[in-house]
Formats: sequence, structure tokens, C-alpha cells
Amino acid sequence: MAEPVSETTKADAPVLPERTREDGERKEKKDKKKEKNVPKASKEMAPKTTKPTQQKKKIEGAEMIGIDVRKEDDLAEWYQQVITKAEMIEFSNVSGCYILLPPSYSVWEYIQTWFDAEIKKLGVKNCYFPIFISEDDLQKEKDHLEGFAAEVAWVTHGGKSKLEKPVAIRPTSETAMYGYYSKKIRSHRDLPLKLNQWNNVVRWEFKHPMPFLRSREFLWQEGHTAHLTRESASEEVLQILDLYAAIYENLLAVPVVKGTKTENEKFPGADYTTTVEGFISATGRGIQGGTSHCLGQHFSKMFGITVQDPTSSEPLNVWQNSWGFTTRSIGVMVLTHSDNKGLVVPPRVAETQVAIVPVGVTAKTTTEDRDKLYKEIEAIAEILKDANVRVEVDFREGYSPGWKFNDWELKGVPLRLEFGPKDSANHVVTASRRDQDGKSTIAITELNTAIPELLETIQADLFKKADESFRTHRVQITDWKDFVPTLNAKNLCLIPHCLGGPCEDEIKEMSKRQQDGDVMAAEDAKAPSMGAKSLCIPFEQPSEIAEGTKCTNPNCKAAAQKWVMFGRSY
Amino acid sequence: MAEPVSETTKADAPVLPERTREDGERKEKKDKKKEKNVPKASKEMAPKTTKPTQQKKKIEGAEMIGIDVRKEDDLAEWYQQVITKAEMIEFSNVSGCYILLPPSYSVWEYIQTWFDAEIKKLGVKNCYFPIFISEDDLQKEKDHLEGFAAEVAWVTHGGKSKLEKPVAIRPTSETAMYGYYSKKIRSHRDLPLKLNQWNNVVRWEFKHPMPFLRSREFLWQEGHTAHLTRESASEEVLQILDLYAAIYENLLAVPVVKGTKTENEKFPGADYTTTVEGFISATGRGIQGGTSHCLGQHFSKMFGITVQDPTSSEPLNVWQNSWGFTTRSIGVMVLTHSDNKGLVVPPRVAETQVAIVPVGVTAKTTTEDRDKLYKEIEAIAEILKDANVRVEVDFREGYSPGWKFNDWELKGVPLRLEFGPKDSANHVVTASRRDQDGKSTIAITELNTAIPELLETIQADLFKKADESFRTHRVQITDWKDFVPTLNAKNLCLIPHCLGGPCEDEIKEMSKRQQDGDVMAAEDAKAPSMGAKSLCIPFEQPSEIAEGTKCTNPNCKAAAQKWVMFGRSY
Repeated sequence: MAEPVSETTKADAPVLPERTREDGERKEKKDKKKEKNVPKASKEMAPKTTKPTQQKKKIEGAEMIGIDVRKEDDLAEWYQQVITKAEMIEFSNVSGCYILLPPSYSVWEYIQTWFDAEIKKLGVKNCYFPIFISEDDLQKEKDHLEGFAAEVAWVTHGGKSKLEKPVAIRPTSETAMYGYYSKKIRSHRDLPLKLNQWNNVVRWEFKHPMPFLRSREFLWQEGHTAHLTRESASEEVLQILDLYAAIYENLLAVPVVKGTKTENEKFPGADYTTTVEGFISATGRGIQGGTSHCLGQHFSKMFGITVQDPTSSEPLNVWQNSWGFTTRSIGVMVLTHSDNKGLVVPPRVAETQVAIVPVGVTAKTTTEDRDKLYKEIEAIAEILKDANVRVEVDFREGYSPGWKFNDWELKGVPLRLEFGPKDSANHVVTASRRDQDGKSTIAITELNTAIPELLETIQADLFKKADESFRTHRVQITDWKDFVPTLNAKNLCLIPHCLGGPCEDEIKEMSKRQQDGDVMAAEDAKAPSMGAKSLCIPFEQPSEIAEGTKCTNPNCKAAAQKWVMFGRSY
Repeated sequence: MAEPVSETTKADAPVLPERTREDGERKEKKDKKKEKNVPKASKEMAPKTTKPTQQKKKIEGAEMIGIDVRKEDDLAEWYQQVITKAEMIEFSNVSGCYILLPPSYSVWEYIQTWFDAEIKKLGVKNCYFPIFISEDDLQKEKDHLEGFAAEVAWVTHGGKSKLEKPVAIRPTSETAMYGYYSKKIRSHRDLPLKLNQWNNVVRWEFKHPMPFLRSREFLWQEGHTAHLTRESASEEVLQILDLYAAIYENLLAVPVVKGTKTENEKFPGADYTTTVEGFISATGRGIQGGTSHCLGQHFSKMFGITVQDPTSSEPLNVWQNSWGFTTRSIGVMVLTHSDNKGLVVPPRVAETQVAIVPVGVTAKTTTEDRDKLYKEIEAIAEILKDANVRVEVDFREGYSPGWKFNDWELKGVPLRLEFGPKDSANHVVTASRRDQDGKSTIAITELNTAIPELLETIQADLFKKADESFRTHRVQITDWKDFVPTLNAKNLCLIPHCLGGPCEDEIKEMSKRQQDGDVMAAEDAKAPSMGAKSLCIPFEQPSEIAEGTKCTNPNCKAAAQKWVMFGRSY
């Protein structure tokens, strides 16, 4: 259930200045004042495109309401602007905690709806365990405790009274739930037991927070299942991992690599951890997307979860899994698709899939003509709603079409339709894809099928583009001298590796940016200082490791066992 | 958003001994040992009906697996047995916190699904604000703070580090959200703003906890909306209250009275509070079911949420509402319908609506005949599934039909179908309603329509029964001497009242159980000691208050304003 967070150093991009809402408000107060004086309902507002001088740093074609730094120039600032200007995130007054606004929370709702139905098909039932865990319970599994102790938040007071014993806020619920499992599971006929929770967890990190990707509170689901046999548990681990991959690939249009974590990187207390690993091309860093763990019998031994073995009548500790998927995934989606015009949201998880903007309405247009056009637009919206398309009609007064185009682009709406007198005369709408330049026309009579198809095409194209990027940035390396340069060129590296933990640690150390005078530092003075860690042992191995192949680490004498994906990471 | 909890004294029923899971486990360990030795897969288990001597207190017709105290004899113990034996609730190791198991969490899911769709029709969007609130924010609205300060849980440590400033866990989110509202709302065109959260809140109560009804953490939805006008806000307050009433009446089959809270009982910081009030007939006590508040402009003034008034261009503080519905409702449902055989769940929120139990399979039945019967049962289940009925087939080995009947009754499944060789020969199933004695037969050819209809009939009958009970226990009183005896006879009292706060306090004091020697105490020595408070001013007034009618409190000189519903309460 862990999302063990990788080390981050101040030199790495993207890190965000630790901002709270108060900072935000000071800045925003000024904007607000400005804003309030401008768009009066009664008078036509000049499109802001006419005031490029107000921009902080000018991007050609960007508007004041848009993003004013490039993704490639300052990823941290760009990310913050994208998620706040698209109203995905707002800062709260508690450091490291973020407000999920409807445009991002709705993505989470689509994920929930799909995944919840899928796990129910597997026989999983939802439940709710308390957010508080007693100190005794939390300490029952030693490795697990060690993995989480440093970031557990503790409640010590209720009202003005000091509690007799502090209680922990769940960082994950293994130790909250398994006492119940020991009580519930009395016979092999009670197995498998498959419970899931949709809840919030808290990990009081002291590393730099980043909205979605690393926050002190986040939302997730955590599944906890108990099985009679290791085989049954192992089968489910992979069923769930496939569902996680499907959320990324089919809903968020984000490619992932499925694999197993190395011993160094597995969940504290697990037998083994499987993972879906994503890739942020802007930084060339990997990112853990979701993990499905076989806990083995570690917890069932500590919590006394036993049944009689039906084959031998001997007591048997049950086999357990846990698996978690978090709101971090929304951040991966944002970083993958968004661009210098703002957010890009794949159609399947977009709160608004299509925005319709009236065009060609001028000061000379009669009220009658305008009303007629608006009625036609409403009829178009009805056609789309009947085709299950999530559509918004933009009749906002006082904003130019150009301003509205920028606004919908900023918000990441996958498809914009324009409709003006000319379109009306030709019985068409003009369509602009968020993910591509250019416009096309679609006959009104074909909208009910053409638009859903086009949305699916956009979905597929977003995935294809991201997948190609990820594929070209997973580089097979067999010579150590290529390792750091390949990382520095924003790639992940697949190397034959011995699977040894100390060897991994050494690779991490060796791939940190060297001090001045070092050849590699000279080669790429801007390379991040972070070392590369193992991301996973991909299920899909590029090739068999030939007999006698040595581990790629030049200081390691051991034989290579597997191709392992290494990379700098979040 | 408050569910201001009424005073509870030790003498009142039902209160539960404050149990944690550890207590439960000690008790359960023994049961477990017993249990594990009994139901072996390989041998027929004697139905437990043959061992009535194992019962703690015998109820005629009750089984060991069932409830062993009567609802009318010991409500507290009965309630605990009903919810734990039906696996609605399990105790956790943190006092006052409970585990919601699938049979109760699924009720919450049905409530969520219905209500979420309804509020989305009203334009409400979901979002998520952090569970943590800064001390500064929490203190911004004085009345609000006073209402919650005593029960706020504080986080003071992250890992081993003491936080610079403690952070509060939300008891409700007004103060967490309205800083954002002041930033988001810049123009009247941003109104109405309608956000909702499904989340967990914590109120560190020191009163006696009771699963569902009073727990330190509970689940709810909290809606927070901002409007340009008082009229718009007021209209929504009632729209939401109607939805709350509909959850109770249409889903949970629980009758409620809609009304306004008096000044004494309104939400801390609200202009006024509307409420749906329920009734627990077993104790004759009222229970607050859900509240929808008009906050007026109190919070918008404190948080600076202003727009320009479009009619005058003057700055205008927005009008705000908040409204919350909690998992407490599940407890009201349990207390209303359940009986001495265990839980009763209304069909519309039952995880399992129909259980099918094979009967007439004896030691003499051939394997072939048994398999044939089971196949017919599976075919029946398919018919029901196709009719959208949630059905379970009970092929458990080693349990007699009688044991299974008791088990499904204990779990509250609304309808049990029996199917044996005789039913097969007659092409019928035998049906037993959970809410009534007796059996009936239904032709297999009619199942697809008859069963859904019967489930709706059960739903309606459960409501009707509870509604009749509530109606007969709302007693109109105009003479003070009848007030306490009417309460003691397990009624709520509707009295003409002056609406004065001090007068309400006096009524509460005067309706407490008097000490020995007092006439009323002699009349009913077992009456609860709790005083009666005002529950609401019902929208539906029984009659006009005649000119010159005095307040019912004999010590009050003021004129009566309204019929007010008073009662002992949870």
C-alpha cells in the first residue's frame, strides 16, 4: 500500500515553493481587484488578447488568462499555473494539503466508478474502518512500522483534554483492519475475504510537497484480502495490477510499465510488490503509479489470522494482499498531457467533454438573429446530451470568442465547437481538438455519432503520443558508461542487474550528479543531482539475459538476473 | 452542519458500555474456540436450535445464533447484539470509533448513490477539502468555534517531530472552505456556488458513544453553497431538506417530521436551521435526522465573501447555506425496524433483498435429486437477477434449513424463499417476509414481477408501520400537568410555546425526573431522568394558535407563538 516516496533534493525540477493559501491570497488579492473592475456584465469586455504587455513572461500566443511560462522552461511554475488556473487545485492554509476542486475531483469520481464496479465483479465489498489506529496496533508488524513511523500524524488532544494515549491517523490500514480479520476469519470457508475502502490517509512528509504527487493527506482506495493459498493471493495481485494499468491506459491515457519491485523498493511488510510505473517525459523521471502487494503470511502471523488447513487440519496462516490506488494518478495525467496552453484532459475522464462557443455575434447582430443562433446551439447541445456527451454551452456575456477559446483550452476541455451564422447557413459546426491545431467541420446531422467517435479518437491519440514518448525513453543499456548520460538525456534505463540491494544503493550513489571537475558534470551541468533507483523488474523483459552476463554496475561482481528499469523518479 | 448531541445521563436507555475491540475479542475468543470446533465441513452440524440451554437469557423461539435479549427489556444490549451479529458494526480498538462492515456500508452506498444524483441535478458539484484546518481559520467565526471547540481533535506531532502549530481535524468544514469561497467568488456571476463533499469528520465527544448514533468519527456529506440573495439560499435550504426527508422515508422507510430548530437548538453560526426529526419508539425519544442550515451572512462577513450587488453596485456579502447528512441515519433505521429476531432492512437499501434456501434435502435424498433441485434454485436466482433483484443462494453445507432461516432473519434480509421437492413439483416457491409471520407461495412463472412487487410492498409496509407508531406518539398537549406523564409514556409532546430560549431551558429542567417523594417520580419510577428539549417547530402545524393562548410552561407569562415538538432525545 506504500507509495514509498523517492528522495528529492532542492536542485531537482519540478519542485514547488511550499505555498499555503495565505501566500496565494496575497497574490490573488491584487488580481481580484483588477478582475473585479473589468468584466462588467453591462459592457463588452475587451478581449485580453489585446493586452499582452500585462504578461509576466511572454509566450507567443498565450493570453493573460493563460499559462505564462513554458513547460520546457520552468516545469514547477508551469505545473502550478496549469492546476490552479484550470481550477484543479487550490492551496489550503495547512502546508502540504491541497483542495481538490470539481475539475480534479470529477476525474477521481470517474476512476472510482469504473474501478469500484470492476472490483465488485471480483467479489470485493466496500467497508469503512476508523481513521484512528491505536499505538499498539500500529506497532504489531515491525517492518511495516519502520516503513511508516517517521510520517505518522498523532492526535494527542480532544478539545482541551490531553488523551490518555495518543492515537495515530492511518497512513494505510493494514494494522487497523487485521485485528478484525483475525476475528472474522474462523474457517477456510470464510476465505477469500475481500474488503476495500475508499478513504483518506495521512503521511506527514517533511519532503517538498507537490499537489497530487506528494501531499500530506491524499485520497485512495485500499483493498485488503485474505486467501487460503498463496496461489489464490498471487492470482489476485495480478488481477488488480491489470485494473490499475487499465485506469492509467484506458481512462487517463497514460502508458505504464507493469513489473515487480526489487527487495529494496517493496512495501514495508510485504512478500513482494507489483507496480505500474509511469514516466514524466518533461523531466525524464519515472513515477510509481499504483501498487498491488502480496503480503504473504507476515501480517497473519502477527495478528493471528488462522484457519484449519482443510487438507491437513493443521492451523494455517492465511495469505494476504493489499493494494492501493491514489489521487496521485491525477497529477501524472496532468504532467503527461498538458501543454503551454494549459490543462489537457482525456475525454473519458473530462468533466466537460465538449464546449460550444457562439461566434460571429457582433454589435451589428440583431437580438432576433442572436436568439435564433443561441436556440440552434441549444438544440446542438441537446443532440450531444442525448448521445451521452458531457457538453457545456458558453453563453457568457462580455467575453470575446477568443477569450472563451483560451479559457476552455486552459481548462483542458478535449473538444471545442464553434457555431456562428456561417456554420448555421452550412448546417455544420466547426470543431477544434484540444490536442491538435487546426479546425474541421462536422455536419449537424452527423453530430450524434461523429462527436462520440471523435472523442474516442482524441482519447486514443493522447495515449498513442504518450506511449510513443515512453517507449523511446526506455533505453536498453549494457555498458555502465552510457548509464548516466542516458539518464541525463531524460530517459529511463533498462539494465541487466543482479537484483542485489547493496548494488542498487551503489548505483543510486554513482548516478548522482558529480562535483565540479567531473566529466559527467561537465557534460551536463544542468542534470538533476538525484541518483537513479530501481523502478521495477518489468514483466515484459526485452530479452533473455544471456548466460554469464554480468551485472551492469561495474563494481558488482555478481551475475545479472533480470532486466531492471532504473531511473530518477518522483 | 451540527448534529448537536443531546445530553445523556447514565440512567437513560439505551446506552452502551464503552467497549473496544479488545473487550470484544476477549469475549469472542471463547466463542471462536467453540465455533471452530463445531461446523466442520465434513460433518452435518446439528442445528443450534437444539441447544437452547446455551442461551444467556432465553427468548422463546430465539436461537443461540440469534438475539438473546428482548428489545423491550434491554434496548442497549439488544441494539449491540443486532448490529454486531448482523455484521453491521465491529468495535475498533479506539474508543468511540466503529468499523462499518459491508452490510451497513452498503446502506450508505445506496444513500450516496441516490442523494448524489439528486444534488447534481441541482447543480451541486463534488470536491474535497483537506481534513486539517489551521487554528486561525477555525477561530474565525466565534459562535461556530464555541459550538465545536470542546470536541475538536488536535494533531500535534508528525512522526517524532512536534508541529510548529497544532492543526485541527475538521468537525465540519465551514472554516476550511470559506477562505476559498472568498477567493473564488468575485462577481455575482460566480453565484450560486454549490459544492459538496463526501468525507469523514471527527468530534471528540466525551459522552457515551453509541454505534452510528454518536461516534467520534463519522461519515457524511456536507454541502456548502453561496447565493446572491436570501431568497435563493432559503429556497435551497428546503430543497435539500426535502431530499433528506426522502432518504429517510423512501429509502430507509423511516418517518420524519420536518421543521425549524428553535434559537436554542440551531447550528452554531447559522441564521436558522431546518431539520428532519425521527422517533425511536422503543424509548419514546426523538432523534435529529439531518439538518439544512441557512448561514445567512455571518460567515461571509468573517471570511470576506463579497460581490458587487448587481442592482446597486454596492458590496454585498453573499448568503450561505450548509447541510449535512450522516451515517447516524443507519442507526435510526436499525432502531426503527429491527426486532427480537435481529436486524430488519428495508428492501431498497438491503445488500441482499432475497435469500433462497433449499429445503427438504435429507439423508435419503440422492445426489442426483439434490443436484436437480440446486439447478432449479440457480435458475430461480437468475430470473430474479434479471429482474434486478439482489439475491443470494444459500447452498452452505452443514447447516440445517432452520439454522439458515434464523441466520437470514438475523441479517435482516427482507424476503426468504424456500425451495424443496414439493415446491418443485408444484412449480412454486415458498416465501417468508422478514417483517411478518406466515408463508405464501408464488408461481415460478410469476417471479420476475411478483418478487419486485412484493419487495416494494414490504418497503411500503415497513414505512406504514413506523409512520403509524410515530403519529400516535406525537401528542398534542395544552395543559402542563400532562406534559411529563406523556413523555414518560414514551411520547413526544406538541405544545403551544412562546419560542423563548430561557423558557425552553426551564421546560428541560422541569421535565427531568424528580427526586424521591415527588409525585411524578412515584408515578413512574422508571422514567428516564433526561429533560425534554425542543426538537423542532414543525412546518406542518396541527392548528392555528388561538389569539391569547399562553405558553404551555406554567411559569412563562409570554404568549404562545407556535406548536413546538418537545421530547427526550438522542
